[in-house]
Amino acid sequence: MANVRAINALLARHAGVWRVRGAKSVSLSGRRWFSVTCPDHPPASPPPLPLSHTMRASIALAEQRQRPVRGPYADRLEVERAVDSVENGGPTRAMRLLGAYCHYTERGAQPGEPRPDPLMGEFGRAFTDHMLECAFRQGEWQAPRIVPRHALALDPGASSLQYGLQIFEGMKVYRPKRPHWNAPTPDVVRLFRPLENMRRLYRSAARLALPLFDAHAMLQLLEEYVRVESAWVPQCDADEEGLTPALYLRPTLISTDARLGVRRPSEALFYVIASPALGSYYSSSNNTAAAGVTLFATDAFARAWPGGVGDAKCGGNYALGLVAQELAITEGCQQVLWLDAQQRVTEAGVMNFFVVFDDGAVCTPPVDTGMILPGVMRDSVLQLIRSGTVGAAPGGRAWRVHERALPIDELTRGIVSGRVVEAFGTGTAATISPVAGIRYREREYRFEARARPLSTALKRALDHICYGDESALEAHPWLHPVYGSGRPAAASASHTQFG
Amino acid sequence: MANVRAINALLARHAGVWRVRGAKSVSLSGRRWFSVTCPDHPPASPPPLPLSHTMRASIALAEQRQRPVRGPYADRLEVERAVDSVENGGPTRAMRLLGAYCHYTERGAQPGEPRPDPLMGEFGRAFTDHMLECAFRQGEWQAPRIVPRHALALDPGASSLQYGLQIFEGMKVYRPKRPHWNAPTPDVVRLFRPLENMRRLYRSAARLALPLFDAHAMLQLLEEYVRVESAWVPQCDADEEGLTPALYLRPTLISTDARLGVRRPSEALFYVIASPALGSYYSSSNNTAAAGVTLFATDAFARAWPGGVGDAKCGGNYALGLVAQELAITEGCQQVLWLDAQQRVTEAGVMNFFVVFDDGAVCTPPVDTGMILPGVMRDSVLQLIRSGTVGAAPGGRAWRVHERALPIDELTRGIVSGRVVEAFGTGTAATISPVAGIRYREREYRFEARARPLSTALKRALDHICYGDESALEAHPWLHPVYGSGRPAAASASHTQFG
Repeated sequence: MANVRAINALLARHAGVWRVRGAKSVSLSGRRWFSVTCPDHPPASPPPLPLSHTMRASIALAEQRQRPVRGPYADRLEVERAVDSVENGGPTRAMRLLGAYCHYTERGAQPGEPRPDPLMGEFGRAFTDHMLECAFRQGEWQAPRIVPRHALALDPGASSLQYGLQIFEGMKVYRPKRPHWNAPTPDVVRLFRPLENMRRLYRSAARLALPLFDAHAMLQLLEEYVRVESAWVPQCDADEEGLTPALYLRPTLISTDARLGVRRPSEALFYVIASPALGSYYSSSNNTAAAGVTLFATDAFARAWPGGVGDAKCGGNYALGLVAQELAITEGCQQVLWLDAQQRVTEAGVMNFFVVFDDGAVCTPPVDTGMILPGVMRDSVLQLIRSGTVGAAPGGRAWRVHERALPIDELTRGIVSGRVVEAFGTGTAATISPVAGIRYREREYRFEARARPLSTALKRALDHICYGDESALEAHPWLHPVYGSGRPAAASASHTQFG
Repeated sequence: MANVRAINALLARHAGVWRVRGAKSVSLSGRRWFSVTCPDHPPASPPPLPLSHTMRASIALAEQRQRPVRGPYADRLEVERAVDSVENGGPTRAMRLLGAYCHYTERGAQPGEPRPDPLMGEFGRAFTDHMLECAFRQGEWQAPRIVPRHALALDPGASSLQYGLQIFEGMKVYRPKRPHWNAPTPDVVRLFRPLENMRRLYRSAARLALPLFDAHAMLQLLEEYVRVESAWVPQCDADEEGLTPALYLRPTLISTDARLGVRRPSEALFYVIASPALGSYYSSSNNTAAAGVTLFATDAFARAWPGGVGDAKCGGNYALGLVAQELAITEGCQQVLWLDAQQRVTEAGVMNFFVVFDDGAVCTPPVDTGMILPGVMRDSVLQLIRSGTVGAAPGGRAWRVHERALPIDELTRGIVSGRVVEAFGTGTAATISPVAGIRYREREYRFEARARPLSTALKRALDHICYGDESALEAHPWLHPVYGSGRPAAASASHTQFG
């Protein structure tokens, strides 16, 4: 394995984003790219995503307007370290769970003020020291930069603020868990299927008329950014149950064009910020995460619609959900279960939605309607089930996946009759979030069974992939390792200091 | 009339936003607010707007969360003049059509660079010297400020940039046209039904969970801003045909909350910028404005849907339209005619849509579906027709308004049979925009008649109200005059200089 690992490290650094996969050794005979599928893992190239007509038309138009799509250029990357960052030996802070010693910036915090633990606070409140940014101007991606995190200077007329020209991605970077507390911190961190996120960002850009980019080149930039911020990727030990530590990345693409006419922007800014987190999106209530969320099913508020932007990850899809989310809470639930005009379930809060039947059938709404965000976690779950990685259903029957419309009546009747045994949401921030019950038209439908065989198996499989032992998972096609991520120079000294 | 005018000026300055209307003189016996309706004008208090269920629920929730709704506080307003603004005798520039002498800032322009004429360039590219801004923090509106126009410093995690928490309004300030070129510039400018815009901004804020405000207090701030920037309101003469000069105001409310969790923001910023314009939104093609726009009818792309945010003026509603708009252009049209799932027309581009039948019936889709933006111009057109202000239809029959669903088939069949004689879009930026034809399913339906009796009459009526002789319109309930708007001190000197 060492051979492949060395080549992978070399390739990751010099030859781009591809890695040798699943082979014990390879010949380097003149070929620059390698992709060898490991047979006992899900396929490296899943079938192409079925896209809505609206999305296909948008991509065709965008690619016609911006030809060829080139950049950003990773070889023009400039890095400016924050003066007080970990790497420069600035203010650091011991955190047992982080495993490294970090300083972090929180918005609004004054120098000298006591700072809350970023890993224990609410999701997405604490940020790392640096941001990645790359401007698009005059039809070209400019030189990308990794710089200290700073406020953006935006024209008040910018169409990102006026016309919602903004898209984003959510991604996580994982560090393998240590077998025990005094084992060394692994010097590798892992991006989870990052190219899928860059591809979705590309589609979102096409849909909102924002500039396109080379997804592979963008991933190279992400990798460099992760390398700079890798000390921020939290560390856990294998015996620490229930923790899902990760560095959450937020790649964002906004228009900086300041003309008030509604038109395709001529200027844009791509940037990435990062926020460390120990738990899931719903971490503020770890009990909820275990007990499962209760969903408020409604069609009075709608998240998406045919011909709209439900399959793009754009800001507007979230703005429209805040009031519905608060109404769900006033109804004693945690999230909205969005129904379409035909009373079929679409998504749950900001997650994709899965329903499990007692005969082993697993259903989720199809993405080609344009009303469902094609989630990376959704796709991973489908692949894990289809490839048999999560084993068989209770009774020995195989799980079977159906991407089909799911009427709320079928769901509620199924819960009552016991035919529907499990439901869960999936998302990068939430990973796998089991559903405890559904409130629909003044009635509450609760899942009696607490076994949840599928979501438990999925969680275990995903945890194994993301946090599992380093060398065994080296070649997993879903993991994009970043090597040489360099534990901070100050780490060992601080280790001594805090014991 | 002088008596009322003096009182109005006094009231406008000291007692808030209300004015004495339509009376020749009034007693001030202990009452602070006056509103006397002028009987030969449309009613000052139109019937309440029918709201969608979604909007009503959002407003109820928002008002429950923020109780009481107070501020912003106009009496805490601070004004900081731009060093190089007109009022300070800074760089000025003669413009015959502007009638006053203005310096303007264009984004990206370098000092010394020749600057294009802001009135002749594309819509919304040139901006005035100042902006109004008022922050919301810790549950309170902070002191409002009028300051030199500047870039906003926004956290890259701000939910205005991540989750589309942004709403805006479009408003116009008019200056009465002079009877001839060397008549004096009137020292009054007029906001057109500004309280309606502030009320819609309030509803949009409720729908997107942004902070609420006192609409009357907000209007007071707007009035002060218009006073500071009044030299930017373009001046035309009565004999200058086809010009619709105005200062376009863009009030904007965005979240400045930087937590990555999707939630009701705790911090926000209200600001106003302004852009002078001579023509309509479609001014780049004045021929088009006269000939009328051609619409591409489609349901492959959808602007709004029941339970969504179609009745709020939020950024996301515009982001989703860019690709459709470009496809309309590739089909040889100028704008999209948005159809709903039942193939009924909803809006045209970013305008409300009206259809006129040969029997005098005027149809426009109803707003209580939540799929139509309740346009101020739309409402004004409805009121002008209902009150008989635009006279009778050809043949002497009265115009009759129907707010009802309009299937595209009825529209296209009507154009072919000659029953539909006219169609037009309405909007603040576009005012009244006649439709020349509609493209639907590979066929083109063109209006043969070029007479357009209704849109012509509406345009004339609106022009009269906005640009008509000062004293005669003093009491019009739709006009909110700003007095003491002060021609710039430098104006007369520059007048001499440029002749």
